Amino acid sequence: MKSTSNLDVLTEALRRLPGVGPKSAQRMAFHLLQHDRDGAALLGRALLQAVEHVRHCTLCNTFTETAVCETCLDPERDPSLLCVVETPADQLMIEQTLTFKGLYFVLMGRLSPLDGIGPKDIHLEKLIARATDGVVSEVVLATNFTNEGEATAHYISEMLKARGLQVSRLARGVPVGGELEYVDAGTIARAMLDRRST
Amino acid sequence: MKSTSNLDVLTEALRRLPGVGPKSAQRMAFHLLQHDRDGAALLGRALLQAVEHVRHCTLCNTFTETAVCETCLDPERDPSLLCVVETPADQLMIEQTLTFKGLYFVLMGRLSPLDGIGPKDIHLEKLIARATDGVVSEVVLATNFTNEGEATAHYISEMLKARGLQVSRLARGVPVGGELEYVDAGTIARAMLDRRST
Repeated sequence: MKSTSNLDVLTEALRRLPGVGPKSAQRMAFHLLQHDRDGAALLGRALLQAVEHVRHCTLCNTFTETAVCETCLDPERDPSLLCVVETPADQLMIEQTLTFKGLYFVLMGRLSPLDGIGPKDIHLEKLIARATDGVVSEVVLATNFTNEGEATAHYISEMLKARGLQVSRLARGVPVGGELEYVDAGTIARAMLDRRST
Repeated sequence: MKSTSNLDVLTEALRRLPGVGPKSAQRMAFHLLQHDRDGAALLGRALLQAVEHVRHCTLCNTFTETAVCETCLDPERDPSLLCVVETPADQLMIEQTLTFKGLYFVLMGRLSPLDGIGPKDIHLEKLIARATDGVVSEVVLATNFTNEGEATAHYISEMLKARGLQVSRLARGVPVGGELEYVDAGTIARAMLDRRST
Protein backbone atom coordinates (compact mmCIF):
# COMPACT_ATOMS: atom_id res chain seq x y z
CA MET A 1 0.00 0.00 0.00
CA LYS A 2 1.22 3.46 -0.86
CA SER A 3 -0.59 5.59 1.70
CA THR A 4 -2.29 8.70 0.45
CA SER A 5 -0.86 11.93 1.71
CA ASN A 6 -3.90 13.27 3.61
CA LEU A 7 -4.24 9.94 5.39
CA ASP A 8 -0.58 10.05 6.43
CA VAL A 9 -0.97 13.61 7.67
CA LEU A 10 -4.04 12.62 9.70
CA THR A 11 -2.33 9.57 11.23
CA GLU A 12 0.68 11.69 12.18
CA ALA A 13 -1.56 14.44 13.63
CA LEU A 14 -3.49 11.93 15.78
CA ARG A 15 -0.20 11.08 17.52
CA ARG A 16 -0.26 14.56 19.05
CA LEU A 17 -3.02 13.27 21.35
CA PRO A 18 -1.65 12.15 24.73
CA GLY A 19 -1.32 8.37 25.03
CA VAL A 20 -1.75 7.71 21.31
CA GLY A 21 1.08 5.81 19.58
CA PRO A 22 1.55 4.90 15.91
CA LYS A 23 -0.68 1.80 15.98
CA SER A 24 -3.53 3.57 17.81
CA ALA A 25 -3.26 6.56 15.50
CA GLN A 26 -3.57 4.32 12.45
CA ARG A 27 -6.54 2.49 13.97
CA MET A 28 -8.24 5.79 14.78
CA ALA A 29 -7.67 7.19 11.28
CA PHE A 30 -9.01 4.04 9.62
CA HIS A 31 -11.99 3.93 11.96
CA LEU A 32 -12.96 7.54 11.35
CA LEU A 33 -12.59 7.34 7.56
CA GLN A 34 -14.30 3.96 7.28
CA HIS A 35 -17.08 4.19 9.86
CA ASP A 36 -17.50 7.72 11.18
CA ARG A 37 -16.76 10.51 8.72
CA ASP A 38 -19.37 12.70 10.41
CA GLY A 39 -17.52 12.24 13.69
CA ALA A 40 -14.21 13.11 12.02
CA ALA A 41 -15.62 16.32 10.55
CA LEU A 42 -17.25 17.18 13.87
CA LEU A 43 -13.99 16.64 15.75
CA GLY A 44 -12.05 18.63 13.18
CA ARG A 45 -14.35 21.63 13.52
CA ALA A 46 -14.48 21.31 17.34
CA LEU A 47 -10.67 21.40 17.53
CA LEU A 48 -10.38 24.51 15.38
CA GLN A 49 -13.21 26.25 17.25
CA ALA A 50 -11.72 25.44 20.65
CA VAL A 51 -8.22 26.58 19.64
CA GLU A 52 -9.67 29.83 18.38
CA HIS A 53 -12.02 30.64 21.25
CA VAL A 54 -10.89 28.97 24.47
CA ARG A 55 -8.50 31.04 26.60
CA HIS A 56 -7.58 31.44 30.26
CA CYS A 57 -9.60 33.35 32.87
CA THR A 58 -7.58 36.43 33.89
CA LEU A 59 -8.49 35.83 37.52
CA CYS A 60 -8.52 32.07 38.14
CA ASN A 61 -6.59 30.82 35.09
CA THR A 62 -9.16 28.15 34.12
CA PHE A 63 -10.38 27.65 30.56
CA THR A 64 -13.01 30.18 29.50
CA GLU A 65 -14.27 31.97 26.41
CA THR A 66 -14.63 35.33 28.13
CA ALA A 67 -12.00 37.46 29.90
CA VAL A 68 -13.28 36.35 33.31
CA CYS A 69 -14.99 32.98 33.83
CA GLU A 70 -18.52 32.50 35.18
CA THR A 71 -17.32 31.20 38.55
CA CYS A 72 -15.17 34.26 39.20
CA LEU A 73 -18.06 36.55 38.19
CA ASP A 74 -20.54 34.83 40.56
CA PRO A 75 -21.53 37.44 43.23
CA GLU A 76 -22.77 34.70 45.58
CA ARG A 77 -19.26 33.41 46.19
CA ASP A 78 -17.03 34.35 49.13
CA PRO A 79 -14.07 36.30 47.69
CA SER A 80 -12.02 35.93 50.88
CA LEU A 81 -11.52 32.18 50.27
CA LEU A 82 -9.30 30.96 47.43
CA CYS A 83 -8.93 27.26 46.62
CA VAL A 84 -5.86 26.21 44.59
CA VAL A 85 -6.33 23.14 42.35
CA GLU A 86 -4.21 21.49 39.66
CA THR A 87 -6.79 21.14 36.89
CA PRO A 88 -10.33 22.18 35.90
CA ALA A 89 -11.34 18.54 36.49
CA ASP A 90 -10.22 18.83 40.14
CA GLN A 91 -12.21 22.05 40.49
CA LEU A 92 -15.27 20.27 39.12
CA MET A 93 -14.91 17.49 41.70
CA ILE A 94 -14.74 20.01 44.56
CA GLU A 95 -17.75 21.89 43.19
CA GLN A 96 -19.72 18.64 43.21
CA THR A 97 -19.18 18.28 46.96
CA LEU A 98 -21.03 21.59 47.58
CA THR A 99 -18.68 22.26 50.53
CA PHE A 100 -16.77 25.22 49.16
CA LYS A 101 -18.30 28.59 48.36
CA GLY A 102 -15.12 30.61 47.74
CA LEU A 103 -13.23 31.21 44.50
CA TYR A 104 -10.60 29.12 42.73
CA PHE A 105 -7.18 29.34 41.18
CA VAL A 106 -6.34 26.64 38.62
CA LEU A 107 -2.61 25.94 38.26
CA MET A 108 -3.07 23.93 35.05
CA GLY A 109 -0.32 21.61 36.22
CA ARG A 110 1.92 20.80 39.18
CA LEU A 111 5.57 21.27 40.04
CA SER A 112 7.52 18.38 38.56
CA PRO A 113 11.25 19.11 38.30
CA LEU A 114 11.90 15.72 36.68
CA ASP A 115 9.62 16.71 33.79
CA GLY A 116 11.09 20.20 33.68
CA ILE A 117 7.93 21.81 35.09
CA GLY A 118 8.97 24.66 37.38
CA PRO A 119 7.17 27.52 39.18
CA LYS A 120 6.77 29.58 35.98
CA ASP A 121 4.98 26.75 34.17
CA ILE A 122 2.21 26.59 36.75
CA HIS A 123 1.58 30.35 36.81
CA LEU A 124 2.70 30.96 40.40
CA GLU A 125 3.30 34.68 39.73
CA LYS A 126 -0.30 34.98 38.63
CA LEU A 127 -1.35 33.10 41.80
CA ILE A 128 0.64 35.47 44.05
CA ALA A 129 -0.93 38.50 42.38
CA ARG A 130 -4.37 36.90 42.76
CA ALA A 131 -3.91 35.88 46.42
CA THR A 132 -2.49 39.23 47.52
CA ASP A 133 -5.37 41.30 46.16
CA GLY A 134 -6.24 42.38 49.72
CA VAL A 135 -9.58 40.54 49.69
CA VAL A 136 -8.37 36.94 49.92
CA SER A 137 -7.66 35.99 53.53
CA GLU A 138 -7.35 32.20 53.37
CA VAL A 139 -5.90 30.00 50.65
CA VAL A 140 -7.01 26.34 50.64
CA LEU A 141 -4.48 24.09 48.90
CA ALA A 142 -6.29 21.27 47.07
CA THR A 143 -3.53 19.92 44.88
CA ASN A 144 -3.37 16.14 44.56
CA PHE A 145 -1.92 14.01 47.35
CA THR A 146 0.75 12.62 45.06
CA ASN A 147 4.44 13.41 45.50
CA GLU A 148 4.26 16.22 42.94
CA GLY A 149 1.00 17.57 44.35
CA GLU A 150 2.37 17.59 47.92
CA ALA A 151 5.58 19.29 46.79
CA THR A 152 3.52 21.90 44.91
CA ALA A 153 1.36 22.51 47.98
CA HIS A 154 4.44 22.89 50.18
CA TYR A 155 6.08 25.33 47.78
CA ILE A 156 2.93 27.47 47.44
CA SER A 157 2.32 27.34 51.18
CA GLU A 158 5.80 28.73 52.01
CA MET A 159 5.42 31.39 49.33
CA LEU A 160 2.04 32.64 50.53
CA LYS A 161 2.71 32.39 54.25
CA ALA A 162 5.75 34.64 53.69
CA ARG A 163 3.24 37.18 52.37
CA GLY A 164 1.11 37.00 55.49
CA LEU A 165 -1.73 34.85 54.14
CA GLN A 166 -3.46 32.08 56.06
CA VAL A 167 -2.88 28.81 54.20
CA SER A 168 -4.69 25.49 54.73
CA ARG A 169 -4.60 22.07 53.11
CA LEU A 170 -7.36 19.51 52.55
CA ALA A 171 -7.41 17.00 55.43
CA ARG A 172 -5.67 13.66 54.93
CA GLY A 173 -7.05 10.50 56.50
CA VAL A 174 -9.06 7.33 56.02
CA PRO A 175 -11.51 7.66 53.08
CA VAL A 176 -15.23 7.62 53.85
CA GLY A 177 -16.36 3.97 53.77
CA GLY A 178 -12.75 2.82 54.18
CA GLU A 179 -12.00 -0.41 56.06
CA LEU A 180 -8.76 -0.15 58.01
CA GLU A 181 -7.70 -3.62 56.88
CA TYR A 182 -7.58 -2.44 53.27
CA VAL A 183 -6.25 1.11 53.75
CA ASP A 184 -2.50 1.59 53.18
CA ALA A 185 -0.28 2.10 56.21
CA GLY A 186 0.79 5.60 55.13
CA THR A 187 -2.81 6.81 55.14
CA ILE A 188 -3.51 5.26 58.56
CA ALA A 189 -0.31 6.78 59.96
CA ARG A 190 -1.41 10.18 58.71
CA ALA A 191 -4.92 9.69 60.14
CA MET A 192 -3.44 8.76 63.51
CA LEU A 193 -1.14 11.81 63.60
CA ASP A 194 -4.00 14.11 62.53
CA ARG A 195 -6.59 12.50 64.84
CA ARG A 196 -9.30 14.84 66.10
CA SER A 197 -11.03 15.04 69.49
CA THR A 198 -14.72 14.18 69.24
CA MET B 1 -16.23 25.15 37.08
CA LYS B 2 -18.82 26.00 34.49
CA SER B 3 -17.29 24.54 31.36
CA THR B 4 -17.24 26.73 28.31
CA SER B 5 -19.28 25.55 25.39
CA ASN B 6 -16.48 25.02 22.85
CA LEU B 7 -14.52 22.98 25.39
CA ASP B 8 -17.56 20.79 26.03
CA VAL B 9 -18.10 20.31 22.31
CA LEU B 10 -14.44 19.32 21.88
CA THR B 11 -14.52 16.85 24.78
CA GLU B 12 -17.68 15.28 23.39
CA ALA B 13 -16.22 15.11 19.87
CA LEU B 14 -13.02 13.39 21.11
CA ARG B 15 -15.20 10.53 22.37
CA ARG B 16 -15.93 9.65 18.75
CA LEU B 17 -12.39 8.27 18.59
CA PRO B 18 -12.29 4.48 19.15
CA GLY B 19 -11.22 3.53 22.68
CA VAL B 20 -11.62 7.04 24.13
CA GLY B 21 -13.99 7.39 27.11
CA PRO B 22 -15.12 10.50 29.00
CA LYS B 23 -12.02 10.74 31.23
CA SER B 24 -9.57 10.27 28.35
CA ALA B 25 -11.48 12.78 26.23
CA GLN B 26 -11.27 15.38 28.99
CA ARG B 27 -7.57 14.70 29.48
CA MET B 28 -6.93 15.01 25.74
CA ALA B 29 -8.89 18.27 25.50
CA PHE B 30 -7.06 19.81 28.48
CA HIS B 31 -3.70 18.63 27.15
CA LEU B 32 -4.24 20.07 23.69
CA LEU B 33 -5.54 23.42 24.93
CA GLN B 34 -2.91 23.75 27.65
CA HIS B 35 0.20 22.34 26.02
CA ASP B 36 -0.26 21.79 22.30
CA ARG B 37 -2.56 24.25 20.56
CA ASP B 38 -0.51 23.93 17.38
CA GLY B 39 -1.11 20.18 17.49
CA ALA B 40 -4.83 20.72 18.01
CA ALA B 41 -5.08 23.07 15.02
CA LEU B 42 -2.99 20.66 12.94
CA LEU B 43 -5.22 17.72 13.87
CA GLY B 44 -8.35 19.75 13.19
CA ARG B 45 -7.21 20.67 9.70
CA ALA B 46 -5.94 17.14 9.00
CA LEU B 47 -9.34 15.65 9.91
CA LEU B 48 -11.26 18.02 7.64
CA GLN B 49 -8.79 17.52 4.77
CA ALA B 50 -8.92 13.73 5.08
CA VAL B 51 -12.72 13.65 5.23
CA GLU B 52 -12.88 15.80 2.12
CA HIS B 53 -10.25 14.08 0.01
CA VAL B 54 -9.80 10.44 1.05
CA ARG B 55 -12.04 7.95 -0.76
CA HIS B 56 -11.95 4.30 -1.82
CA CYS B 57 -10.05 2.87 -4.78
CA THR B 58 -12.59 1.69 -7.35
CA LEU B 59 -10.54 -1.47 -7.94
CA CYS B 60 -9.08 -2.58 -4.61
CA ASN B 61 -11.27 -0.61 -2.16
CA THR B 62 -8.34 0.78 -0.13
CA PHE B 63 -8.09 4.44 0.89
CA THR B 64 -6.87 6.70 -1.90
CA GLU B 65 -7.23 10.26 -3.13
CA THR B 66 -7.55 9.30 -6.77
CA ALA B 67 -10.11 7.05 -8.50
CA VAL B 68 -7.60 4.18 -8.65
CA CYS B 69 -4.80 3.81 -6.10
CA GLU B 70 -1.08 3.72 -6.94
CA THR B 71 -0.76 0.00 -6.25
CA CYS B 72 -3.54 -0.90 -8.68
CA LEU B 73 -1.99 1.37 -11.33
CA ASP B 74 1.48 -0.20 -10.99
CA PRO B 75 2.27 -1.93 -14.35
CA GLU B 76 4.98 -4.08 -12.69
CA ARG B 77 2.43 -6.07 -10.73
CA ASP B 78 0.94 -9.41 -11.74
CA PRO B 79 -2.78 -8.84 -12.43
CA SER B 80 -3.57 -12.57 -12.32
CA LEU B 81 -2.95 -12.74 -8.55
CA LEU B 82 -5.36 -11.07 -6.11
CA CYS B 83 -4.69 -10.99 -2.36
CA VAL B 84 -7.67 -10.34 -0.06
CA VAL B 85 -6.88 -8.56 3.23
CA GLU B 86 -9.00 -7.06 6.00
CA THR B 87 -7.36 -3.65 6.33
CA PRO B 88 -4.80 -1.36 4.66
CA ALA B 89 -2.50 -2.08 7.64
CA ASP B 90 -2.57 -5.80 6.76
CA GLN B 91 -1.75 -4.95 3.15
CA LEU B 92 1.20 -2.87 4.33
CA MET B 93 2.54 -5.81 6.38
CA ILE B 94 2.36 -8.13 3.37
CA GLU B 95 4.05 -5.53 1.16
CA GLN B 96 6.91 -5.34 3.65
CA THR B 97 7.61 -9.07 3.19
CA LEU B 98 8.35 -8.50 -0.54
CA THR B 99 6.86 -11.95 -1.26
CA PHE B 100 3.77 -10.91 -3.17
CA LYS B 101 3.78 -9.12 -6.50
CA GLY B 102 0.10 -9.35 -7.37
CA LEU B 103 -2.74 -6.95 -6.65
CA TYR B 104 -4.92 -6.54 -3.56
CA PHE B 105 -8.52 -6.27 -2.47
CA VAL B 106 -9.09 -4.60 0.90
CA LEU B 107 -12.34 -5.67 2.63
CA MET B 108 -12.16 -2.82 5.18
CA GLY B 109 -13.50 -5.22 7.79
CA ARG B 110 -14.40 -8.85 8.38
CA LEU B 111 -17.60 -10.85 8.69
CA SER B 112 -18.83 -10.58 12.27
CA PRO B 113 -22.50 -11.54 12.65
CA LEU B 114 -22.40 -10.76 16.40
CA ASP B 115 -21.51 -7.15 15.57
CA GLY B 116 -24.02 -7.05 12.73
CA ILE B 117 -21.33 -7.01 10.04
CA GLY B 118 -22.56 -9.07 7.10
CA PRO B 119 -21.36 -9.68 3.52
CA LYS B 120 -22.60 -6.29 2.30
CA ASP B 121 -20.57 -4.38 4.90
CA ILE B 122 -17.29 -5.84 3.67
CA HIS B 123 -17.97 -5.13 -0.01
CA LEU B 124 -18.17 -8.75 -1.18
CA GLU B 125 -20.11 -7.80 -4.32
CA LYS B 126 -17.28 -5.48 -5.28
CA LEU B 127 -14.82 -8.33 -4.59
CA ILE B 128 -16.76 -10.74 -6.83
CA ALA B 129 -16.82 -8.20 -9.65
CA ARG B 130 -13.10 -7.59 -9.18
CA ALA B 131 -12.12 -11.28 -9.01
CA THR B 132 -14.21 -12.32 -12.02
CA ASP B 133 -12.71 -9.73 -14.38
CA GLY B 134 -11.27 -12.55 -16.50
CA VAL B 135 -7.65 -11.64 -15.67
CA VAL B 136 -7.47 -12.81 -12.05
CA SER B 137 -6.76 -16.55 -11.89
CA GLU B 138 -5.82 -17.07 -8.23
CA VAL B 139 -7.16 -15.37 -5.12
CA VAL B 140 -4.95 -15.52 -1.99
CA LEU B 141 -6.98 -15.13 1.21
CA ALA B 142 -4.93 -13.22 3.81
CA THR B 143 -7.60 -12.35 6.35
CA ASN B 144 -6.58 -12.68 9.99
CA PHE B 145 -6.36 -16.09 11.66
CA THR B 146 -8.97 -15.11 14.23
CA ASN B 147 -12.43 -16.69 14.35
CA GLU B 148 -13.92 -13.83 12.34
CA GLY B 149 -11.04 -13.80 9.86
CA GLU B 150 -11.25 -17.57 9.31
CA ALA B 151 -15.01 -17.39 8.84
CA THR B 152 -14.58 -14.56 6.36
CA ALA B 153 -11.96 -16.55 4.44
CA HIS B 154 -14.22 -19.61 4.36
CA TYR B 155 -17.19 -17.60 3.11
CA ILE B 156 -15.19 -15.86 0.38
CA SER B 157 -13.52 -19.13 -0.59
CA GLU B 158 -16.85 -20.90 -1.18
CA MET B 159 -18.17 -17.89 -3.08
CA LEU B 160 -15.20 -17.63 -5.43
CA LYS B 161 -14.67 -21.37 -5.97
CA ALA B 162 -18.30 -21.55 -7.12
CA ARG B 163 -17.28 -19.09 -9.81
CA GLY B 164 -14.39 -21.26 -10.98
CA LEU B 165 -11.53 -19.34 -9.40
CA GLN B 166 -8.49 -20.92 -7.76
CA VAL B 167 -8.46 -19.88 -4.09
CA SER B 168 -5.59 -20.24 -1.61
CA ARG B 169 -4.99 -19.29 2.01
CA LEU B 170 -1.81 -18.17 3.80
CA ALA B 171 -0.12 -21.17 5.42
CA ARG B 172 -0.72 -21.80 9.11
CA GLY B 173 2.01 -23.22 11.33
CA VAL B 174 4.72 -22.54 13.86
CA PRO B 175 5.97 -18.92 13.63
CA VAL B 176 9.54 -18.34 12.49
CA GLY B 177 11.75 -18.38 15.63
CA GLY B 178 9.00 -20.19 17.55
CA GLU B 179 9.93 -22.68 20.29
CA LEU B 180 7.48 -25.57 20.40
CA GLU B 181 7.35 -25.42 24.21
CA TYR B 182 5.80 -21.96 24.03
CA VAL B 183 3.57 -22.35 20.96
CA ASP B 184 -0.11 -23.08 21.64
CA ALA B 185 -1.39 -26.59 20.98
CA GLY B 186 -3.82 -25.47 18.28
CA THR B 187 -0.99 -24.03 16.21
CA ILE B 188 1.13 -27.17 16.63
CA ALA B 189 -1.83 -29.37 15.70
CA ARG B 190 -2.32 -27.31 12.54
CA ALA B 191 1.40 -27.46 11.73
CA MET B 192 1.34 -31.26 12.17
CA LEU B 193 -1.68 -31.70 9.88
CA ASP B 194 -0.18 -29.37 7.27
CA ARG B 195 3.34 -30.86 7.51
CA ARG B 196 5.35 -30.73 4.31
CA SER B 197 7.82 -33.21 2.83
CA THR B 198 11.36 -31.83 2.73
